Amino acid sequence: MTGLRPSGRRTDELREVNITRGFTSAPHGSVLMEMGATRVLCTVSIGDGVPRFMKGQGRGWLTAEYSMLPGATRERGQRDATRGRQQGRSVEIQRLIGRSLRAGLNFKALGERTLHVDCDVLQADGGTRTASITGAWIAVHEALDGIGLAEKVLAHQIAAVSVGIYRGTPVLDLDYKEDHVAEADLNLVMTAEGRVIEVQGTAEGEPFEMSALESLLRLGKAGIEELVERQRQHA
Amino acid sequence: MTGLRPSGRRTDELREVNITRGFTSAPHGSVLMEMGATRVLCTVSIGDGVPRFMKGQGRGWLTAEYSMLPGATRERGQRDATRGRQQGRSVEIQRLIGRSLRAGLNFKALGERTLHVDCDVLQADGGTRTASITGAWIAVHEALDGIGLAEKVLAHQIAAVSVGIYRGTPVLDLDYKEDHVAEADLNLVMTAEGRVIEVQGTAEGEPFEMSALESLLRLGKAGIEELVERQRQHA
Amino acid sequence: MTGLRPSGRRTDELREVNITRGFTSAPHGSVLMEMGATRVLCTVSIGDGVPRFMKGQGRGWLTAEYSMLPGATRERGQRDATRGRQQGRSVEIQRLIGRSLRAGLNFKALGERTLHVDCDVLQADGGTRTASITGAWIAVHEALDGIGLAEKVLAHQIAAVSVGIYRGTPVLDLDYKEDHVAEADLNLVMTAEGRVIEVQGTAEGEPFEMSALESLLRLGKAGIEELVERQRQHA
Amino acid sequence: MTGLRPSGRRTDELREVNITRGFTSAPHGSVLMEMGATRVLCTVSIGDGVPRFMKGQGRGWLTAEYSMLPGATRERGQRDATRGRQQGRSVEIQRLIGRSLRAGLNFKALGERTLHVDCDVLQADGGTRTASITGAWIAVHEALDGIGLAEKVLAHQIAAVSVGIYRGTPVLDLDYKEDHVAEADLNLVMTAEGRVIEVQGTAEGEPFEMSALESLLRLGKAGIEELVERQRQHA
Amino acid sequence: MTGLRPSGRRTDELREVNITRGFTSAPHGSVLMEMGATRVLCTVSIGDGVPRFMKGQGRGWLTAEYSMLPGATRERGQRDATRGRQQGRSVEIQRLIGRSLRAGLNFKALGERTLHVDCDVLQADGGTRTASITGAWIAVHEALDGIGLAEKVLAHQIAAVSVGIYRGTPVLDLDYKEDHVAEADLNLVMTAEGRVIEVQGTAEGEPFEMSALESLLRLGKAGIEELVERQRQHA
Amino acid sequence: MTGLRPSGRRTDELREVNITRGFTSAPHGSVLMEMGATRVLCTVSIGDGVPRFMKGQGRGWLTAEYSMLPGATRERGQRDATRGRQQGRSVEIQRLIGRSLRAGLNFKALGERTLHVDCDVLQADGGTRTASITGAWIAVHEALDGIGLAEKVLAHQIAAVSVGIYRGTPVLDLDYKEDHVAEADLNLVMTAEGRVIEVQGTAEGEPFEMSALESLLRLGKAGIEELVERQRQHA
Repeated sequence: MTGLRPSGRRTDELREVNITRGFTSAPHGSVLMEMGATRVLCTVSIGDGVPRFMKGQGRGWLTAEYSMLPGATRERGQRDATRGRQQGRSVEIQRLIGRSLRAGLNFKALGERTLHVDCDVLQADGGTRTASITGAWIAVHEALDGIGLAEKVLAHQIAAVSVGIYRGTPVLDLDYKEDHVAEADLNLVMTAEGRVIEVQGTAEGEPFEMSALESLLRLGKAGIEELVERQRQHA
Repeated sequence: MTGLRPSGRRTDELREVNITRGFTSAPHGSVLMEMGATRVLCTVSIGDGVPRFMKGQGRGWLTAEYSMLPGATRERGQRDATRGRQQGRSVEIQRLIGRSLRAGLNFKALGERTLHVDCDVLQADGGTRTASITGAWIAVHEALDGIGLAEKVLAHQIAAVSVGIYRGTPVLDLDYKEDHVAEADLNLVMTAEGRVIEVQGTAEGEPFEMSALESLLRLGKAGIEELVERQRQHA
Repeated sequence: MTGLRPSGRRTDELREVNITRGFTSAPHGSVLMEMGATRVLCTVSIGDGVPRFMKGQGRGWLTAEYSMLPGATRERGQRDATRGRQQGRSVEIQRLIGRSLRAGLNFKALGERTLHVDCDVLQADGGTRTASITGAWIAVHEALDGIGLAEKVLAHQIAAVSVGIYRGTPVLDLDYKEDHVAEADLNLVMTAEGRVIEVQGTAEGEPFEMSALESLLRLGKAGIEELVERQRQHA
Repeated sequence: MTGLRPSGRRTDELREVNITRGFTSAPHGSVLMEMGATRVLCTVSIGDGVPRFMKGQGRGWLTAEYSMLPGATRERGQRDATRGRQQGRSVEIQRLIGRSLRAGLNFKALGERTLHVDCDVLQADGGTRTASITGAWIAVHEALDGIGLAEKVLAHQIAAVSVGIYRGTPVLDLDYKEDHVAEADLNLVMTAEGRVIEVQGTAEGEPFEMSALESLLRLGKAGIEELVERQRQHA
Repeated sequence: MTGLRPSGRRTDELREVNITRGFTSAPHGSVLMEMGATRVLCTVSIGDGVPRFMKGQGRGWLTAEYSMLPGATRERGQRDATRGRQQGRSVEIQRLIGRSLRAGLNFKALGERTLHVDCDVLQADGGTRTASITGAWIAVHEALDGIGLAEKVLAHQIAAVSVGIYRGTPVLDLDYKEDHVAEADLNLVMTAEGRVIEVQGTAEGEPFEMSALESLLRLGKAGIEELVERQRQHA
Repeated sequence: MTGLRPSGRRTDELREVNITRGFTSAPHGSVLMEMGATRVLCTVSIGDGVPRFMKGQGRGWLTAEYSMLPGATRERGQRDATRGRQQGRSVEIQRLIGRSLRAGLNFKALGERTLHVDCDVLQADGGTRTASITGAWIAVHEALDGIGLAEKVLAHQIAAVSVGIYRGTPVLDLDYKEDHVAEADLNLVMTAEGRVIEVQGTAEGEPFEMSALESLLRLGKAGIEELVERQRQHA
């Protein structure tokens, strides 16, 4: 199997993970999440109040926004503000980040506050949405810790990883070189206990067998176990 | 198990499916897809040329747009044009529809043409995105048939269905009453041969076990087999 | 005169009129209005409250929105949400629909409620704005009936029709083939009693004589009398 | 009848008309059109080429834009650029101005050039859309004169006026005090020969009789005759 | 030095200044400011209340908007409303106008009112931003005078002028012919007492020496003294 | 003088300057510029071609965009893409950055290429616009170096700094605590040789004397000399 992946990694090997807590000090939580060359700045700001449709229920909320800096890729991207609206891809990703993080929170214990999560990709080399979720969870932890509510509000520890079929073989944590030619791509969000929060799998080329789906899920589950361990060292 | 579902359906029972081909005559393909009270008008227009980034490769393309009429729900929704941009939810859904349908097409055989798929929800009662995919596939078939290319371009027959966990039990084809209280929700897109094109599962309440995911996949696969049969009667 | 019109109709003959009340069940009123191949889905949702500038006066309001589905025409149209704003033509039409319907309502009797009228053109073959008004009036009737206020609030029964000069001859209810080559085009909105609510006439080619305007008005008046009759059968 | 109108005018009396040709010198045509306190700056710029859909036909085109300066009314209006789009009312008006002026031009004789007409309301006191048309026609004349094409391209001389029913009586050229309480409002665009280009009549209160419509048309026709005379003195 | 400037002016000579107070009567203040061929209509509307972030402090506010009519230049400009947003240049200028005028006001004495300043350029021939400031100050004076607060609220008299280096020589009040080839361009806003409110200098070609900056400042100061005199004659 | 500044700095003392070249590797140039707690990521991407209005002249171009991440400040900012357009402040700043950098380039030597400069503020503590210019210049150097054109294209070395009057005293390089209460604020952009590219000074409170302006310019000039030295160590 050696030599399959451009990076020389084993099929079940994560890229180097670097987590920098408190990368900036202005927001309540701030984490620079690095998986290989992918770098996402995840910040969390706690605001008073909740969106209008939730007022008066005594429950909190979490919203997430995701964006890629124009210089995050070799080929410069257009800035959302210039385009006048977000890219469809960003909209889809930030909805996933928000849903995933909300699944791990006890909003009753948070009270009428809103956690604003911002995931800004400084450099993109594949797996930015899953790196965002894994990193943002630590930033949420940091932010809640700062107001003494981490234990009460965090019902689940959450991490995410991508898996895919590359040259016919299931591989963990695809980088860009693998990702853009992969036959299938699956993003998995799970709790530390191995329960599923979100699964999104797509056939990029030919439709794939149910059995391949099962292999991908197993591989992803193992990767998330490692990431959960890494999060613990920083949260 | 009788009495579990508000509609009285069995857990593995689809809603009544009605497919009206040629509902309108202006576009190249036009299907009114009804699953219970959910009604989606799926139209397909064939245009010459392809988006700029694909020019000169001799390959075709398919784009999809999804929208809900303001009056499609009891509580009237705001029109996208009034808001000045699409809802995030619509963006996410139309990206899913596009990806799913593209996975079944041989673009080389289509040549430099673009299939414009429009899924407009006239009435929403749950499962609009999967009804859109199942209906749009028939409209694509109709449109390609009209230019004598159905056989060459359609590499796979595609259908989609939603499954979910409702009151602790996996059920097929959720309607709105079930959907908005379901513990988990999974949309499955497959080929007639039972291969996976897309799977999107979300824990709406508590994270769920891998074993539950497997049950949902099985249930969805069976539902898609039925839908594929219904499509055949109209395509 | 036989043989003048592409459809073979007499100059004073309406197209086939089909009115389907309760076409969808989610909104308070829902009518599928068909005039020949032109099909408009007219829905009405009743909301509490009125726009800010009218608050506290104890009077109701009606707003209308008009849109054409992209697949409504042979040449696919661009979706408003993609363009980021409504077409000028749609803006002009929905203002006409709103003004026309408001002229027939007793807002004092409605109280501080707003009728949201949506006219979505499923297929366009000329005369979509007048079909929208005629159909929407029935949907308004249905919606008001549902809250027991039809009699009190509906001060006038309203219908609309287009007339035009086609190959030198005034004709009633133009279809697209006639409309896009007509020398003059006039939209007329009237009450069941034959009083004028709105008249909009345009010289598409050469300016026309006052006497031609008078002929068009007479022809339109007769057409509206028929439409009023058809509305009665369904309202 | 004396004393009916707030301004003391006779029912068939225009406001004071002031036409300043060459009000600015940058554009090809520039007219400050004043009807009473209503002031519209009408400018015309001639550009090479035509919109894409008209290319290669050897014919010219005219487009019009209409806007009200925020300070044009006592109660300051919101600027379109701040709102991010034009008001519906402005869209409707500029479409009317464009249609009306185009009806008087021989585009074949213009060649592939575009006349850009801008009507910016410096002060609004009723009748801004008809003042725009009457003034813009002179600016178009001035612009075409400058390139030696006035005679060939101008097929018709065009003017516009508003008429309405004020306190039960048809009156000519309503000012704001009359306009906002008028029972009916009609804008009429005609050629110097008394042929109709556009008629737009609206019941602001109760629907009105056909006979009232006829009175309004007669009154408007007489007003336009006077305006045509005034245009001749400046064109 | 004679013959240096296209207009034949001396290097320290302003263009002809014309100030028309009360150019329109709808807004509280209205001034047509002309400097040579540059014409700006400056209007001021007084509104109750202040922006949300200032409420309850008993202090007033001033906001400014700046726009150029499409026909203000020989080459017609695109309308902001068509573009869907303001040009960057307009944004920058209106922020300068607002800051400059606010520096001269005692907002405590104004109470919770907002002065809405609109500067609309009817014709542009260089120096539109400085003409806007000088003219708007008079319109602000007129508006405050109308509510008896001019003396209390106006803490400073303010005027602005542009200076630049044209063919190696510092010149006052550049017109377009000079401006678009100038090596340096400096806009200066000062009080009647010669104190600085804003200075914005830019090297258009080569960077310039500090000593050149000092010459420009001196020249601008002298020009402002003249303008202040002209303002006094009209305020 | 000790004890005047919250940070304990001398009036003529810069904050700690940290320059990290190659902070990311995707774009052609990438610099993390830190001045105290202010952190700006400056990236440069080189693209083929120039904007349409410059084509065929054989000259290059530079454009700049500036944005603040939502989490860059304690109070979270709204994302431009959510607002649908850039803040006025960002527009003004990016125009300044672009003008300043362009003044130092020989576009003839660059040929028809465009340098896209992106300045994204990761954390804001005052002086973000001047830090952007100083950092972006290094990133431009890095990018040009990579294509072997640094020497030919870079005509001037450029740096920028802010100065202001804080509690009556001119101070260098204001941080946020000083900036938001400063009486005057001046941004200065200069070449390594001490020539002026841009000067923007604003009275935040009371208008200031010409002599104060001169003090600020001297202080800023000295600060830029130090920054130029720091740039040399990294370029």
